[in-house]
Order: sequence, then C-alpha cells, then structure tokens
Amino acid sequence: MKNATECIHIDLAERSYDILVGAGLMGRAETYVDLPVGASAVVVTNTTVAPLLAERLTRALRQRFATVRVVELSDGEVHKDWETLNLIFDALLASACDRTTTLFALGGGVIGDMTGFAAACYMRGVPYVQVPTTLLAQVDSSVGGKTAINHPLGKNMIGVFNQPLRVVADLDALDTLPDRELIAGLAEVIKYGPIADAAFLDWIDANLSALKARDKRALGYAVKRSCEIKARVVAQDEREAGLREILNFGHTFGHAIETGLGYGAWLHGEAVGCGMVMGAELSARLGLIDATYAERLQHIIERAGLPTVGPRLGTARYLDLMRLDKKSRSGLIRFVVIEAPGRAGVHGADDELVDQVLTAHTR
Amino acid sequence: MKNATECIHIDLAERSYDILVGAGLMGRAETYVDLPVGASAVVVTNTTVAPLLAERLTRALRQRFATVRVVELSDGEVHKDWETLNLIFDALLASACDRTTTLFALGGGVIGDMTGFAAACYMRGVPYVQVPTTLLAQVDSSVGGKTAINHPLGKNMIGVFNQPLRVVADLDALDTLPDRELIAGLAEVIKYGPIADAAFLDWIDANLSALKARDKRALGYAVKRSCEIKARVVAQDEREAGLREILNFGHTFGHAIETGLGYGAWLHGEAVGCGMVMGAELSARLGLIDATYAERLQHIIERAGLPTVGPRLGTARYLDLMRLDKKSRSGLIRFVVIEAPGRAGVHGADDELVDQVLTAHTR
Repeated sequence: MKNATECIHIDLAERSYDILVGAGLMGRAETYVDLPVGASAVVVTNTTVAPLLAERLTRALRQRFATVRVVELSDGEVHKDWETLNLIFDALLASACDRTTTLFALGGGVIGDMTGFAAACYMRGVPYVQVPTTLLAQVDSSVGGKTAINHPLGKNMIGVFNQPLRVVADLDALDTLPDRELIAGLAEVIKYGPIADAAFLDWIDANLSALKARDKRALGYAVKRSCEIKARVVAQDEREAGLREILNFGHTFGHAIETGLGYGAWLHGEAVGCGMVMGAELSARLGLIDATYAERLQHIIERAGLPTVGPRLGTARYLDLMRLDKKSRSGLIRFVVIEAPGRAGVHGADDELVDQVLTAHTR
Repeated sequence: MKNATECIHIDLAERSYDILVGAGLMGRAETYVDLPVGASAVVVTNTTVAPLLAERLTRALRQRFATVRVVELSDGEVHKDWETLNLIFDALLASACDRTTTLFALGGGVIGDMTGFAAACYMRGVPYVQVPTTLLAQVDSSVGGKTAINHPLGKNMIGVFNQPLRVVADLDALDTLPDRELIAGLAEVIKYGPIADAAFLDWIDANLSALKARDKRALGYAVKRSCEIKARVVAQDEREAGLREILNFGHTFGHAIETGLGYGAWLHGEAVGCGMVMGAELSARLGLIDATYAERLQHIIERAGLPTVGPRLGTARYLDLMRLDKKSRSGLIRFVVIEAPGRAGVHGADDELVDQVLTAHTR
C-alpha cells in the first residue's frame, strides 16, 4: 500500500483539481512538483498538529519554495472566527507575502475552512493546497471548495466557494488522530452510503471494525470512495444550487445541535452522526423509506461509536436554529432526506413531524 | 437628458452584467424589474447618504420585494474594516436573511466595496446590486467586481472579486455630492485618458469646467465613456492577471499616500490624482513619454482641483508602503506607467528614479 497513490479528479473547468490519496504523500517533494511556481509557501496549521506534522510538510516544501513559513493557530472550532482568521492575514502582510504566495492548510476541517477562506480573500485571492490530517477533512471538508468561519448566530455563515489547487490526503496523518476524531470522521464516510451508494453502505457495514482499527487498506478505500462520490456531486453543482445539498444529510439537525450546545461541545462528525439518525427517522416518517432502513443506519452509526441521541434543547429552539440553515428559503426549513437506499433529496416537513423526530431522538 | 439611459454591457460569461447610466434611474421600479426574484432586499448605506437617498431607493424596491431593510453604517474610509463589515452580517442574520436576499450598495466606493464583499461571503454568496452615489464610484469602484476591506498594514488587502448583478449609476445622485468628492471622482475620470483613450483626455481637457459645474450632459458622457473603457479592460482580464493592472495608474503612489497618512486624511481620488502626477513623471524619466505630456496631464489634474504634490513621508517609507502593493511580485514594485498617450503598461523602476520622482513631487 505504501506507494499506491490514488488520484481523483474534480472536474470544474478552470477550477479543476486532483485529490491525491495515499500513505506518505505529505513528506514527498514530488507531491508538489507540478504546482504553479511561486517564491513562498505559508503553512497554516494549529498548535496540536504542528508538533506532529509541520516538519514533515515543510521539509518537502523547502525543496520547491525559497521561503516556507508556518502560521500556528489555536486549535478548535471555537477559534473558527474572524479574530483567528485575521492572524493569518497579519502573518502574510508582516512577511510582505504577495499574490504568488501559496497557502497550505495542514490540519482538520477548521484549518482547511479558514485557510481556504484566507486564500480567497488575501489580496483578492492566492492559491492554496489542502493537506487534511483528519479523516473528516480527508473525506469531506477539504473537498469541494467550501470555506468559512462561524458567526455567533450560525455556523459557517461567513465564507466563500474557493477551490484548492490540490488536496493531499496522506493516510499516515491519520495515525496521529485521537480515537474520538477518527470516529467523528466515520460519520461523514457513512453519510455517502445512504445518500449516493447503497453498496458502499454495505461495504462500510462489513468493514467497520477494520476502519476503527485504522487498517490502512480499509481507510484508503473509504477515503477514495468518499472523495469519488463527493467529486461527482460537486462537479455537477459547484455552488450548491441544488444537487450538492444532499451532501448535507444529517447536517440540518447536526448544525442545530452544534450551535445549540455552543461550538466545540460536540465534534462536527458526532453532531452529523446523530443528525443522520434524525434525518433517517424523518425520512421514514415522511413515508420515503422503511423504518427498518432507518434502524439499520442507526445501528451502523451506533456501532461506529457515534451518538444517536441528541441534547434536549426543546423543539422550538431546534426549529429556530434550523431556520437559520443555509438551505432554508424564506423561513421554510429544507431537510435532506433519504428517498431510497443510496438516493437523497430535499424536502420540507411539518413542525409536528419534526417534533416527533426530536422527541424520539433527544434526551 | 432625463430619460436617456445608457446601457454598458460587461461581458464576463455567466457573471456578465449591465451598467445603467442616466438621470433618475434609482427611483424607478423598472430599473429593477428584470432582476432575479427574491423575497427580500437589504440596502446597505451610510449615515451621510441614507437621509439623502435611501427613501428614493427603498420606495422603488418595495414595488418588487416583499421586505426591504436598510443597514446604515458609519461613513468614511476609516470604517472600511472588519468590525463595520460584520455589522452587515449581524443585520442579515438577525433578520434571518437567506441566500435569496439581494443586497443593494447605496453609497460611494467604501459602501460598494464592503457590500460586495459582504454579498460574496454571506452564506457563501448572495446577489448584489451597485447603486453608486459618488462620481468616483460611478466611474470606477462600482464597476469590475473588486471588493475589499482595509487592513492596518494595507489598503484593500482583504477582499474578493465578486461581480454585481447590475450597476445603477443615477446621475441625479451626484447632485448630493460635496464639491471635494466630485473633484476626487474626476481623478478617476481623467485616468482613463492617458491609459486608454487619448481623445477622451482631449474631451476632458475641453469640458473640465462643465464637469466641475455638474453639467448633466457632460457628467453623463464622462461616466459612460469611463465605464466603457473599464468594461473593455475588465472583460479581458477579470481577475487582474495582467492588462487590468493598467487601471491602477496613479494608485501605487496613491495608496502609499493614503496608507502613509492614515486612511481618510486624503480622499482616494485626491491620492490618485497626485499619484498620477508622480506616475507620469516616472514615465517621462523612464523615457517612455515626453516631459510635455506629463506636464499637460499635471496641468489638467491641477485645474480639476486635485493635489499635485504629495506628503513628504520619506522615500524609504514610500518604498516600504509600495512594496506591499498587490501588483508587487517577490518584493519588486511594479508601476503602471504611460507608454504613449492613451496606452499604459507595467514597469519596474530603480529606487533612485523613484526617489527623484518623490523629491520633485512631495513637500
């Protein structure tokens, strides 16, 4: 497996790019050899990841860039805000970085989202490369060009679509991941089954133990297949005008949990895991799928080690939080639901039905 | 002139849009009739413009949008910062505005830049319309999709390219403009002559008194011709990879003056006027144009009422500030210079030559 690098192409006209998946990619100079020439590279990372992986990346980058700088941010979703984003701009301006500077996002979803947003805004745009170090970032947040920071009134409310030059998903980086983070990442892997690929859910079901045991072959396939599915969806709907919304399965309920509890109480993947249980229940109550399919999905999520019961915030609070979801239109909440195993769609739902779902799945 | 509306088309594939130029446009419902349908409109303006023009715009918008809200920001370049930008996000989120909300930028360049940036970032993008109320914004900042806020270390350092749905340049709005602002706007009008249209400089030379006296016919032609030139340049180079840089004539020196003195001491147009005098002098010293052409341009800028002598910040400070210019590449300052009457290019220059220019044109 060591040198088996998979390449998934994301087809977005002049914004097309490749996702490389493999073990040991990050530290090899050839991973970056065909990137556009620039004098300087700036690695944006956090205080947790930096001691584990920054040296591995910068050593490889120094073979290509005359100057390689590292910007270390505080770790955690609570720091996904303007003040922290501004530290990137401060560092870039203090070093007189110009428009030929390439940013490298070394970390999980928060680092990826913030670095991508900073790259979009610094001097109205510099190139950036995603080097995701968490499973969640490798299968989801580093792919598709969504960048953002949080606002006190809502998660990821301030951001842009900005595609990276490349995504480097190094499976060896997952060795550094705490169990809780690995499990949170599995939520987004599981997601691709019900929304797009029934056979992939069967594969996950059969390989869940291997994934949790960090078997590289299993992780490699999970990352590759997840990226393939996401790539197909994003290529058809880059700016989330329709189809792409299905990638948000579990996220409407999940974001409400995250915002309701305050960022950082639950990991994003944990909230999405629980949100998928709620979304599947809603799909069943809407008569779209059998209750047995919803139960099977819940069972897989539970076996993965993810929460399946949400906090009791009260239905009114959940509804208020979900009305702020970016999929909402004129105050109507729009839920991603499973229409059939491997196929998702977006539906509205009566408040009463949502209340039933929340009653069944909060405590 | 009342109903003679000019329409200039900016051709940018799916981001194409029209600039409407005419008297009385802002208050007419038909100006907005073919915009994409959305439930709500949010007018972003400032405390100076709001009492003069907000009612005129909102009355027309109410015929098309179910909800029309107004967000009033503090006036001035010193407020072109994140804190003020965030007031727009606060207002949008507090009103639960979704992705179908259309923003309207009612004001000068600062309001246009900030509203365009907010529109790019709110929920990763909502549509916006420019309704420029200053001459400078009508001929320059509202056209071309550049949006930004300032950073303590540099002007317009944080922003994105984001094209509006439409630009509504209502000549009647210029009636509300203080003389100093009208004159500052003339700097950007004058700019289009030396960089792109020698005949237009002759026309400006002959019509300067009419322009300063706010003759609507003269202003209408100046706005239309300026937008046509800018449209042609932007259509060829939307993201400022090359040609578009010529629109920055006078801006490298000008930005250094603005940043060096602190934002707001000089109006942007005043700094650009003086910057063009310096840029023309540099062009002459580089042997690109005759000294007489540089003198003629200086004379026109002087007659317009613009400053032709900059503050004595010291050459080292000017160079430091100019190295932060977005056109710089790997620490080398790149100046827009006049290569021939009506034609501009981008050149480097020895520090010594820059020092001579600054010695001649600062006091």
